[in-house]
Amino acid sequence: MDKKEPVMEMTRRQFLTKVGKIGGTAAVFSMMGTLGLLSPETLKAAEFTPPNQGDLTSAHRKGKKVIILGAGIAGMTAAYELGLAGYDCTILEARPRSGGRIWTVRRGTAETEIGGIKQVARFDEGETMYLNAGPMRIPQFHSTMEYCRKFGVAIEPFNNVNEHGYYYNENVGALSGQKVRKRAAKADVRGYVAEMLAKAVNQNALDLPLTPDEKLKLVDYLKREGDLSADLFYKGSERGGYIEEPGGKLDAGVRRDPFDMKSIITSGFGIFFASEYSYDQQMMMFHPVGGIDAIPRAFEKRVGHMIEFNSEVKEIRQNDSGVRIVYTNAKTGATQELTGEYCICTIPLSVLKSIPADFSKEMADAIGKVNYASAGKIGLQFKRRFWEEDEQIYGGSSLTNMDITQMYYPPTGYFGKKGVLLGYYVTGANADKIGSMPVADRENYALSQAAKIHPQVYREFEASFSVHWKNIKYNVGAWGSYSAEERKTIYPTLCKPDGRIYLCGEHISYIPAWMAGGIDSARKVVTEIHERVMKE
Amino acid sequence: MDKKEPVMEMTRRQFLTKVGKIGGTAAVFSMMGTLGLLSPETLKAAEFTPPNQGDLTSAHRKGKKVIILGAGIAGMTAAYELGLAGYDCTILEARPRSGGRIWTVRRGTAETEIGGIKQVARFDEGETMYLNAGPMRIPQFHSTMEYCRKFGVAIEPFNNVNEHGYYYNENVGALSGQKVRKRAAKADVRGYVAEMLAKAVNQNALDLPLTPDEKLKLVDYLKREGDLSADLFYKGSERGGYIEEPGGKLDAGVRRDPFDMKSIITSGFGIFFASEYSYDQQMMMFHPVGGIDAIPRAFEKRVGHMIEFNSEVKEIRQNDSGVRIVYTNAKTGATQELTGEYCICTIPLSVLKSIPADFSKEMADAIGKVNYASAGKIGLQFKRRFWEEDEQIYGGSSLTNMDITQMYYPPTGYFGKKGVLLGYYVTGANADKIGSMPVADRENYALSQAAKIHPQVYREFEASFSVHWKNIKYNVGAWGSYSAEERKTIYPTLCKPDGRIYLCGEHISYIPAWMAGGIDSARKVVTEIHERVMKE
Repeated sequence: MDKKEPVMEMTRRQFLTKVGKIGGTAAVFSMMGTLGLLSPETLKAAEFTPPNQGDLTSAHRKGKKVIILGAGIAGMTAAYELGLAGYDCTILEARPRSGGRIWTVRRGTAETEIGGIKQVARFDEGETMYLNAGPMRIPQFHSTMEYCRKFGVAIEPFNNVNEHGYYYNENVGALSGQKVRKRAAKADVRGYVAEMLAKAVNQNALDLPLTPDEKLKLVDYLKREGDLSADLFYKGSERGGYIEEPGGKLDAGVRRDPFDMKSIITSGFGIFFASEYSYDQQMMMFHPVGGIDAIPRAFEKRVGHMIEFNSEVKEIRQNDSGVRIVYTNAKTGATQELTGEYCICTIPLSVLKSIPADFSKEMADAIGKVNYASAGKIGLQFKRRFWEEDEQIYGGSSLTNMDITQMYYPPTGYFGKKGVLLGYYVTGANADKIGSMPVADRENYALSQAAKIHPQVYREFEASFSVHWKNIKYNVGAWGSYSAEERKTIYPTLCKPDGRIYLCGEHISYIPAWMAGGIDSARKVVTEIHERVMKE
Repeated sequence: MDKKEPVMEMTRRQFLTKVGKIGGTAAVFSMMGTLGLLSPETLKAAEFTPPNQGDLTSAHRKGKKVIILGAGIAGMTAAYELGLAGYDCTILEARPRSGGRIWTVRRGTAETEIGGIKQVARFDEGETMYLNAGPMRIPQFHSTMEYCRKFGVAIEPFNNVNEHGYYYNENVGALSGQKVRKRAAKADVRGYVAEMLAKAVNQNALDLPLTPDEKLKLVDYLKREGDLSADLFYKGSERGGYIEEPGGKLDAGVRRDPFDMKSIITSGFGIFFASEYSYDQQMMMFHPVGGIDAIPRAFEKRVGHMIEFNSEVKEIRQNDSGVRIVYTNAKTGATQELTGEYCICTIPLSVLKSIPADFSKEMADAIGKVNYASAGKIGLQFKRRFWEEDEQIYGGSSLTNMDITQMYYPPTGYFGKKGVLLGYYVTGANADKIGSMPVADRENYALSQAAKIHPQVYREFEASFSVHWKNIKYNVGAWGSYSAEERKTIYPTLCKPDGRIYLCGEHISYIPAWMAGGIDSARKVVTEIHERVMKE
């Protein structure tokens, strides 16, 4: 590798694959570092080296049977990657469909929740008339994007940031019950805060370890950050929007007056800002065109022949030589068995803990201890996209301290006639509170709170579909949730293979709830199983 | 209107139109206020009431001929709205195409700049292989969106904010020559600034007019804004990204270390933040699928029969009874005349000032005084979308203090093989400097600076097309630019009709450079002419 030319004639992938064959993953890393082109995110993505398709000799291949429990994204990723390497995989999936929580509700989608609540979605037909009941967005650096790319899943931006959305809080002083455009709250809070600090720095009121020149630079930044006047006052800003918009001829526009400092501080709007700052909530984000289930559909196209649907796992057995899964056909009730060498179990721990299984005591204890988050969503179909027509809001969210917490305007189908708005996306106690209501009450609750922000809702509402994940069979919860302490105690146990069984899924990752958590977890398991097989 | 029911049975548009017929625009406004549903942006949009189609009687219609100079968006908006009301409009357009600065460069697009530089775009064929040489994005609340909606122009988000893009500055101390993800700079600057202020507030070091409870709320906000520790220190944040990404199993991720405070303050990255805060740069923004010229194409579909292309205006004459326009066919050289009652002149003032015309001295002086901004862009076609593949950047920009100022990654065609990246979008002195270079030098200059952020550019580059608006015939500049003083002195003159001639375009608005400036200006002129005709 002492000459660069041959490298440049290969594609990056060809090149890295070649290096990997010669020197293994470590060499790939080192070489990528040398090239200096690649970001940590790429390194992360490249960290997974699929099993070499030539590794499995015919001797190996005989009997390298892997039973995968669950045709969600983790199970299908494992099946896809192992399948490419020549493994004989079977996926047992309890439902008649793949995807698990990656679930798009459309016209005709039927679901009966634990507890008996039954719904059939009455949304109109149409490519954009859906509710993504589980995950709905992809950070651009997640491994999910790799498979979308590889499988040709068309994506479009998910409008996670929209300054034209509202903040609306109750019982917060002077601004209670006022819907305020996000831009207005941000301009005012940033303005006042910049003013306070700029003045303090300028007057040397703070004991800062800065040189005079650095202080000048800091004040210059604060002036821009807060849109301050030359004498360092925040007097409102065009950033906060207008009472009368600027436009043609003599329409110079009339800026809104800023809220007074006490009101805006007391409003609590400021603590909403940081939700957009989180690493995995920052723009740009994406989602598949036509519904999030385009992703499991793309996987299923490649691994569908390995899936046995309607197969509900009843027992998970193992000994020194193999695994044995007892399952029933959910439709016929017939009991069957399947044996193999290894088992990848992606069943949510909230469900798995009740399935008889040959886990070590340590593993069984750990499985029993993991908390699952509660989360719920409601899709509200409106016969008119009033948020676009009346209020020029194209995607994004409005946030509130009411129980519904947040509403998301559809990030697709702009200018369409109708739309399905995400009326709430609630977690924790709010999710349990709303989720415990009958369907009609959930709908009324969502509409009554939404109406405070958008009085149009009653006039325009047509149909809803709500999901309470704690009550969804085969999930019984939204995602695996760990305290920092649990990451040290029970989590490492869950990550270790237990005999021939490997746990897998978003709950076996440091990015729980995300599709990429399932993918990254599966890739780890694929590598572990393959390395084990190669050593045998 | 003492009952609400009938209102609810009409659509909003039907209702407002009805109110408008009864009581005029003032009544519409008042009623919309009463309904309380509509935002200032909607009020703005609704402010324009198109001429009633029944207004023009046959007596009126006879001879109500309006000559419109320029088939850009202002001219076509005027023709469209006046045409609907029965006016007889002719648009004289110097170019063989409509749209003016709303111009999408694709394979085969040819342009000879003033000075002789000739280019033919060699971009590949393909829906996403274009450079929007002029405007490229639409704030969601602009009137441009209304026409996109009305004309069925498909839009998609324009990724104006992307935390995964870079800041790159030279000669700024310790961070010189380092490309830094935007998220990292934001996390650090916000972190340190929040820390400074939180500590000061907590220690009562500032004389703030806040109650203890308000101070607590302020500190709580600052903790979240800066991701501070319990003892109010900024120690880095996941918001800034990772050296090793979190993922499956035991990949907890390794956060990047924050830059030290002095380095990040001196870097100047902080002053980039505010570019995303501007009212008209905030998310969400949009653009037409397939190129910005979908907008003029949609207008042309409706007013194309009124346009005489290749018609270069040579003289603009008027007297008490009408206007007379002398123009030549740019292809044949033949001189022709056209007479009418009114003229709407959308010709950029940088061009208009050299056309013999019967303007009042006051108007002619004002026209001569308006400065036009300099701006330039270059489209760079790459054979691989390395920004997506290697660096997971899907749209958005990277900003720098190098002359190229900013690069924009294509906000369309994600996952495609090739892409056209906006290599620079420069204004002012930078635009003049780069624009004065031969085409090959512009290209080299763009690549050499881009290479500091993306070393891949040389290996992947295929073709460029650059535009220097000061050298584009029929434009001679990018947009009308006014000082605050000029808005008070010359601008009001430009807004008044001069006899029978009405100036119109983005330069006759308070939102210059924007397509909506042209639209809003045209709507004002339409209303003024119609009111004048109705009074005759």
